[in-house]
Amino acid sequence: MKLSHWLPCLTWGRRYNRSKATQDGMAALIVTLMLIPQSLAYAMLAGLPPVMGLYASILPLLAYALFGSSRTLAVGPVAVVSLMTAAALAPLFPAGSEAYIGAAMLLALLSGLLLSGMAFLRLGFLANFLSHPVVSGFISASGILIAIGQLKHLFGISASGVSLLQIIPQLWQGLPAMHWQTLLIGLLSLAWLWWARARLKPALQRLGLSAQTAGNLAKAGPVLAIVVAIVAVSWLQLDQAGVKVVGAIPQGLPGLALPTLDLELALQLLPAALLISLVGFVESVSVGQTLAAKRRQRIEPDNELLGLGTANLSAAFSGGFPVTGGFARSVVNYDAGAQTPMAGVFTAIGIALSVMLLTPLLHNLPHAVLAATIIVAVLSLVDLGSLGRTWRYSRQDGAAQLATLLGVLLIGVEAGILIGVGLSLLLFLWRTSQPHMAVVGQVPGSEHFRNVERFAVIESPSVLSVRVDESLYFPNARYLEDRISELIASRPQVRHLVLMCSGVNLIDASALDSLETIVERLQTAGVQLHLSEVKGPVMDQLRRSSFLEHFGGQVFISQFDALKTLAPQVTHPLSTQPLTHRTP
Amino acid sequence: MKLSHWLPCLTWGRRYNRSKATQDGMAALIVTLMLIPQSLAYAMLAGLPPVMGLYASILPLLAYALFGSSRTLAVGPVAVVSLMTAAALAPLFPAGSEAYIGAAMLLALLSGLLLSGMAFLRLGFLANFLSHPVVSGFISASGILIAIGQLKHLFGISASGVSLLQIIPQLWQGLPAMHWQTLLIGLLSLAWLWWARARLKPALQRLGLSAQTAGNLAKAGPVLAIVVAIVAVSWLQLDQAGVKVVGAIPQGLPGLALPTLDLELALQLLPAALLISLVGFVESVSVGQTLAAKRRQRIEPDNELLGLGTANLSAAFSGGFPVTGGFARSVVNYDAGAQTPMAGVFTAIGIALSVMLLTPLLHNLPHAVLAATIIVAVLSLVDLGSLGRTWRYSRQDGAAQLATLLGVLLIGVEAGILIGVGLSLLLFLWRTSQPHMAVVGQVPGSEHFRNVERFAVIESPSVLSVRVDESLYFPNARYLEDRISELIASRPQVRHLVLMCSGVNLIDASALDSLETIVERLQTAGVQLHLSEVKGPVMDQLRRSSFLEHFGGQVFISQFDALKTLAPQVTHPLSTQPLTHRTP
Repeated sequence: MKLSHWLPCLTWGRRYNRSKATQDGMAALIVTLMLIPQSLAYAMLAGLPPVMGLYASILPLLAYALFGSSRTLAVGPVAVVSLMTAAALAPLFPAGSEAYIGAAMLLALLSGLLLSGMAFLRLGFLANFLSHPVVSGFISASGILIAIGQLKHLFGISASGVSLLQIIPQLWQGLPAMHWQTLLIGLLSLAWLWWARARLKPALQRLGLSAQTAGNLAKAGPVLAIVVAIVAVSWLQLDQAGVKVVGAIPQGLPGLALPTLDLELALQLLPAALLISLVGFVESVSVGQTLAAKRRQRIEPDNELLGLGTANLSAAFSGGFPVTGGFARSVVNYDAGAQTPMAGVFTAIGIALSVMLLTPLLHNLPHAVLAATIIVAVLSLVDLGSLGRTWRYSRQDGAAQLATLLGVLLIGVEAGILIGVGLSLLLFLWRTSQPHMAVVGQVPGSEHFRNVERFAVIESPSVLSVRVDESLYFPNARYLEDRISELIASRPQVRHLVLMCSGVNLIDASALDSLETIVERLQTAGVQLHLSEVKGPVMDQLRRSSFLEHFGGQVFISQFDALKTLAPQVTHPLSTQPLTHRTP
Repeated sequence: MKLSHWLPCLTWGRRYNRSKATQDGMAALIVTLMLIPQSLAYAMLAGLPPVMGLYASILPLLAYALFGSSRTLAVGPVAVVSLMTAAALAPLFPAGSEAYIGAAMLLALLSGLLLSGMAFLRLGFLANFLSHPVVSGFISASGILIAIGQLKHLFGISASGVSLLQIIPQLWQGLPAMHWQTLLIGLLSLAWLWWARARLKPALQRLGLSAQTAGNLAKAGPVLAIVVAIVAVSWLQLDQAGVKVVGAIPQGLPGLALPTLDLELALQLLPAALLISLVGFVESVSVGQTLAAKRRQRIEPDNELLGLGTANLSAAFSGGFPVTGGFARSVVNYDAGAQTPMAGVFTAIGIALSVMLLTPLLHNLPHAVLAATIIVAVLSLVDLGSLGRTWRYSRQDGAAQLATLLGVLLIGVEAGILIGVGLSLLLFLWRTSQPHMAVVGQVPGSEHFRNVERFAVIESPSVLSVRVDESLYFPNARYLEDRISELIASRPQVRHLVLMCSGVNLIDASALDSLETIVERLQTAGVQLHLSEVKGPVMDQLRRSSFLEHFGGQVFISQFDALKTLAPQVTHPLSTQPLTHRTP
C-alpha cells in the first residue's frame, strides 16, 4: 500500500500551479462568505456557542484537504449533522453548558475515530445499509424539523425538544410571549434571504454585471443580511430592547485542547456517534460522487472515510463539533471553479482571519437572522415529492421512506433512522421469504425458457420445469418445501422436476437441508429432482457437501439441455454439442 | 374459511373407530409412563414445583388434540423450553417462590397469545428466521447447558446461573459440600438410564419377549428408576440423611385459575415469551413434519400455531408453564402406533389419574433421579458433529452456528439465539452487499451464456455482457456502480453493456437510482446500457418508473437476442423468430 494511496494530496499537489491557485482562491472567497453565517448558525442549531461553528471550519478543512479524495467537497458544520448533535446531547446536559460543549467535542472525537477506523478496516460498505429512500426521508424530515425548531428564534421565545410532538406545543404556549422586534428582524431576514436565493443573481445581471460576477455576489446575500442586522441592532440598541444577540465572542484562534475523556459518557454517546458518522459519510459521499462524475474524476470511499475521520478528529482537538461534507457549499465551491482541495485550505485561512479580526463585530448579530439563514438553507432539503415517486415504484421502499420521515418528525432523528433501516431490512427479508416461483416452458424456436403464464411456451407433460426467483436461504427454505409439494401434488403425470437455478445466487445450509427433504419426499412420490443452470459459485459450494453424490438427479448446464435429455421428443434439437461444467 | 380448517379434529374424528382407539390407547400408555418422570423433571429444570409438570401435561394435551394438525405430536413440557423459562424468570424472582410460579403461568399465557395471534395473522413465516444452523447450535448448547446445570442435583449442592460461566465456578466451589448418598443415587440412576436407553430392549428380547413388547417395556425404564429410588429412600430414610426429595405434593387436579395479570411484568416477559414461542414452534413443527411425511400426511403451520397457542393458554389457566411438542416423546408416540391426536387425549387422562392417585407416593422421589432423567434425555440433543458439516459447507452458516452455541453456553439462551439470528442476517446482508458478477460469453453452438472464466465461450469486442448474481437492492446499489465503472474503464472498445438479469429477482428504489447514475456515467463514456432476461415481476416494477422510457437502451428477452441484435457478426444465427414481453 503506497503512501500516496492514503495521501491523495501528494498526487494533485505535484501538478499544482498558479492558474489553479487563482481559481481555488476565488472559489474559497465565495465559500468563506457563505460559510461565516452558516457556521455560526449551525453551531447555534447544535445548541453550541456560535463561535464553535467558526472553530469547526478551520482545522477540519485542512485535514480533509490532506486526506480526502474529492477535489471540490466543502467540509464543515452542516445542518443535518448539527441537528443530530443536538438530539444526542440535549437529553444529557443543558444546551450551551460547559459539560454540553465538552460532550460535543467528545462526539466529534468518537465520530473521527469511527470514520478513521472504518477507513482502515474497509467498512465503508456499512453506509450502504442506509438505503436511498431512508436517506431521502431522513433528510426531508430533518429539514422540516430544523425549520420548525428555529421558529423559536424568530418569535424570540424558548422551546426545545427532539420531535415535533415536543416542539409544537411549546411554540404554541410561547406565542403570547412573542417578541415583536425579534419577529420583525427575523421576517425581514427571511424575506430577503428567500428573495436573494432565486432573484438576486438575475437582478444583479440586469444591473449590468456578468453572469459569473452576479452569481458570485449573490452568494454573499446572507452576509449582507448579517451586516445590515448588526448595524440596525447597534444603532437602535435593540439588544437593550430584548432582541437576543450572539454576544461576546472570544477573539483569536481556538487553543488546541484534548476533549474530556469520560469513558462512561463516551460509551453512552457511541450509538449517536455511529449514526452521525454514517449519515455524514453518506451525505458527503453522495455530493462528492456527483461532483466528481461531472469532471470524470473518481473518489475513493476509503479516502473519504479517512478525510472525514481526520476532519472530525481535528474538530475535536480545536473546540469544534461533528462536521462533514455539505451539499450546498460543495456545489457552490464547484460552480465557483474550485480545482483542488487547496480551495479548502484557502477557505480555512479565510475563516481563521475572520475569527481573529471579525468576532468583536459579531456581538450584536441577532439570533433571529441566524435562524432565518438556517430555515432558508434547510427548506431546500425538503423533497416530499420523492415520497410519491418511491411509493409508486415500490410499496416496500415507500413504506420505509414514510416510516423514516414520520419517525424523525414524531420521535426524533435517531429513532427515525433506526426505524427506517430496520423496516428496510425486515421488508426485504419478508419479501425474499416468499419468493416468486414460475413454472417455465421453452420459447418456440429458441433454447430460452420463460414463465408459462407470461409467454406462449412449450411444456413437457412428464418434466416439470420450475424457476425459483430468489436465493435459497433460511427465510425461504421451508416455503420452498411447501411450494414444491403443492406443484407436484397437482401434476400426477410428472416424473422429473428440474429446478432452474438461474436466479439462485446462494444455497445456504438451511436450504441445503430443505433440498435433502424435498429429494426424499419427491422420491416417495416417484419424482426425481434435477438442477439446471446452477451458477459457478453455487456449484462450488454444493460440491463441498455430499448432496450432489446422493440426490440421484443430474445437474444440467442449461434448462434446454435438461429437457433435451429428459424429454427429447418435446424440444427442438437445436444444439448437439455436449456441455460440461468446468472449474476455473 | 371453514370451521374444519381451524378444527382438524372434525376431520379425523369423523372416521374414528375402535381399532384406532386400541392403537391410540396403547401408545398413550407408553407415553404416559415416559411423561410422568419427564414432566416432573422438566418442571424442576424450569425452577418450578415438580407437580406443575404434571399439571402442564393435562389440559394442554386436550387443547392440542382439538386444534393441532399433527396426528402424532406429543405436547407437554420439554427440556429446551423449560430451560428458557428458567432463564427468563431466574433474574426476576427466587426460583419456586409464589411470584416465580405466577410469572411462569403468565409466560405461558403470553406465549399462548403470541402463538394464537400468529396463527390468525398468518405470521408463521417468522419462525423461518431461525435458520437451521442457529437452531442446531441452540439445541446442542441447550443440551450441554442443561446437563451441566443438573450436576448440582447429582452432587446434592446448590448452584444457579444462566450460563456456564456462572454455573461452573459455583459447582467447583460447592464440590467440598458434596452429599455422597445423593451422588450415589444419582450415579446409579444415570448408569441404569444410560444402559436402559440402548440395552434394555435387546436384553428383554433375549428373555423371550417380542421386539414390540420389549421396546414398549424398555420405555418404562425411567419409571423403574423412580420406583426403586422411592422405595430405597423410604426404607433407608435417606431423606432424613439429607437426600433432597420432591416432598409433599398437593393431591388432585389443578384448579382453573387466572394467572397474575401484571401488565408491567407482562411487558418485561414479552421478549422472552416471543423467543420461547418461536423456538417451541420450530422444534414442534420440525418433528411434526418429519413424522407426518413418514405417513404421507401434511401438517398446516397455521393449525400448529393455534394448537400450540391453545395448549399454552390452557397451561396458563391450569397451573402449568410453557409447553410445546417434544421430539423424543413424539417419536415414541409414533413408534408405539398412535393414529390420531386421541392418543394425546388418552395420555392426558393417564396423567390426570396419576395426579389424583399417585402424588402421595412421589413424596420420597429424590431430585437426583430426576436430574439423571434430564441428563440422559438432553445429551441425545447434543450434536457437535453438525458444526463441522455446516462449517465445511459454508463459513457463514458455520460462524452463525458456532456463535449461537458459544452465546448460549457463555452468555445465556436468549442472548445466544439473538446473536445467532442477528449474525445470520448480517452475514447474509454482507454477502449480498458485494455480489458475484461475471462477464459472460456465448457457449459455442448454443444460445446459452456463461462466465468467461469458467467456460470456453465466445465474446464480442464491442458488446460487454455482464451477469449480476444478486438482486439489486440497497446494500449493493453503490457496489454495482463501482464495479461497472471498473469493467468499462478497462475495456475501451466496448460500445454496449448488456446487463444480464437472470439472477436479479428485485430492483429496489436505491438500485433504480444507481441504474440511472450508471446510465448517465456510461453515456458520457460513449457506452449504452441494455438489459436482458429481465424477469416478469421485475419488468412490471420497472414499468412503474420512467426508467425504461429514458435510459436509451433496449430490454432483450434473452442474452442471445441481445447479442444477435447488437453484434450480429459474432453470434450463430440459431433462431430467427422475434420474441416480445407479454403481460399475463
